[in-house]
Amino acid sequence: MLYSVIMAGGKGERFWPLSRGHKPKQLLALNSDKPLLVETIDRVSDLVPLDRTYVVAGEALAKPIAAAIPGLPPGRILTEPVGRNTCMAIGLAAAEIGARDPDAIMLVLSADHRIEPASRLREILAFGAELAAAEDRLVTIGITPTRAETGYGYIETGDIVARKGDLVASCVAGFKEKPEPRQAQVYYYGKKHLWNAGMFVWSVRSIWRALESYCPVHFTALSACRDHPGESVCREAAYQQVPDISIDFAVLEKASNVITIKADLVWDDVGSWLALDRLHERDRDGNVVKGTVLSLDTAETIVVNDEPGVVATLGVSDLVVVRSGAITFVAHKSRLGQIRNLVQKVSVEHPDLV
Amino acid sequence: MLYSVIMAGGKGERFWPLSRGHKPKQLLALNSDKPLLVETIDRVSDLVPLDRTYVVAGEALAKPIAAAIPGLPPGRILTEPVGRNTCMAIGLAAAEIGARDPDAIMLVLSADHRIEPASRLREILAFGAELAAAEDRLVTIGITPTRAETGYGYIETGDIVARKGDLVASCVAGFKEKPEPRQAQVYYYGKKHLWNAGMFVWSVRSIWRALESYCPVHFTALSACRDHPGESVCREAAYQQVPDISIDFAVLEKASNVITIKADLVWDDVGSWLALDRLHERDRDGNVVKGTVLSLDTAETIVVNDEPGVVATLGVSDLVVVRSGAITFVAHKSRLGQIRNLVQKVSVEHPDLV
Repeated sequence: MLYSVIMAGGKGERFWPLSRGHKPKQLLALNSDKPLLVETIDRVSDLVPLDRTYVVAGEALAKPIAAAIPGLPPGRILTEPVGRNTCMAIGLAAAEIGARDPDAIMLVLSADHRIEPASRLREILAFGAELAAAEDRLVTIGITPTRAETGYGYIETGDIVARKGDLVASCVAGFKEKPEPRQAQVYYYGKKHLWNAGMFVWSVRSIWRALESYCPVHFTALSACRDHPGESVCREAAYQQVPDISIDFAVLEKASNVITIKADLVWDDVGSWLALDRLHERDRDGNVVKGTVLSLDTAETIVVNDEPGVVATLGVSDLVVVRSGAITFVAHKSRLGQIRNLVQKVSVEHPDLV
Repeated sequence: MLYSVIMAGGKGERFWPLSRGHKPKQLLALNSDKPLLVETIDRVSDLVPLDRTYVVAGEALAKPIAAAIPGLPPGRILTEPVGRNTCMAIGLAAAEIGARDPDAIMLVLSADHRIEPASRLREILAFGAELAAAEDRLVTIGITPTRAETGYGYIETGDIVARKGDLVASCVAGFKEKPEPRQAQVYYYGKKHLWNAGMFVWSVRSIWRALESYCPVHFTALSACRDHPGESVCREAAYQQVPDISIDFAVLEKASNVITIKADLVWDDVGSWLALDRLHERDRDGNVVKGTVLSLDTAETIVVNDEPGVVATLGVSDLVVVRSGAITFVAHKSRLGQIRNLVQKVSVEHPDLV
């Protein structure tokens, strides 16, 4: 049977002040009028019913996630006592799903990305599920690049191993870190590299075997969880034992049975406020506006007003202006990389505002 | 006897959103922790008691002004049914004070300027009162320029007519409009021109005579007010009859008995948000901050947070950011000249926010 595992552990500091501790990015309606997490579940609902949908997140998010997905049966939110990166989050889901259905196939999805069109995504994931069920394979989804992006990791493709209709699966020749601009150009024009979107398809059996081979510490800790599904004491003990490591570093870069499906999807990791320029329609001056906003002589500016009243701008450009709760945030677009430093500073002086 | 007349009719749109219809600039504490109007009255309280202090303003401001000056006796707020500029406002005060005391000397002061030191101002005004009592003269106060300012009108001085201690009064050779930058340089370095600060000293008798000579329409309207002091029906009829004109155009540029006292005062008309850069201490990055504000990598920016919560800025410069009530305002300093256009736009779509 096919299961989906939604990775919803992100803190989303990069969307502060709209994102806060109790309402991180995946719970914000940044793309449509639905939270990104709900969009993620809706996209694959024709493949996977809610009963076989698992969401992995910190304990603090269990309630808001349950509220956002009213139909989710009990036990489908897998809470982590501490964040230990994707290797442990995926391993926990494999342990819990494996205890229920040892023959399960897992779709691993991120809770906070934009992906279109959903029908094409489902074709790709269904193909991945076939490949994962047929052999001991770890399937990654690689997005066809549409620009020489330096902000994403890349997957280098090798020989083609399978086809279905116009879909193609290839060996993975290697995983590449976020490149320098010149290298990104080489990747983009060479057409052999895909964006690593953090979407995976594999059987519980295959990922379990891979964890045993490449991450024995994680495997031992997770085995106890698999033997006692849903037991929080056991889960807490497991999380205490393991280091913080991503599934990419821990498994995918080491395993020889990794393949990738080339996915011609519109994909965005919604990584910062700047994503709104890509996700939303801009007015003729290049502004993106949400909520009640009045602008004069304003260009290339993102204004989000999440409150009653008005945000008024005059003679500014290239800014991000956000009004949310008791916080007003004004930043230059070019400095958004420092937003964590600002949030850190706020958390020291006003811990209630983070 | 000496009376003061405080001109408090300004709408102060240039301090929106802190200034609003019911709380214009003169009622804001922009310079110290007291409203500018209260500072104005306090500066001359050693010369003029509250009983002889009159405030001229629109009807809508009567209550907030009374609340700001608890000791002001009844009848000292002269409300105008409509704004008709300074000729009518001063004329109304002359009519009301003249009905009470035909020998009165009036100090005409603006409610929303910064002037320091107060002791020096009192010396200057006392000298003006002596000159106005001794002869039929209209005395203006001219500020010694400290820069080649293009935003103020100028008074050209002529021969010296009186001295007292180190104070000097001169004939006025002419009034000059706001100059172009080159002309402002000529005025500044020539040392014969003073800033026209809109402060005057004269007897009720002298200004009455001048109004009769140069503004017969105003004079007729105001005579009815003088015959029926405090009667609003009479005042409303008077204001319907007269055109909008300043005392400078209507009287001072025509009269031959105008003199000026050179005043070496720190003076600022607090004309826009930019005044805060002059009025307040700036941090080492050139920022002026009021209220709870957290800034990172921010320079030459004015941030006013009039609400609970925080205004956070990141990587910006040369901005004005104001949070007040349900309004957040973000402007580039260089575009503040357009603020009336923005307020106009807000007033159309959100009349409650202006």
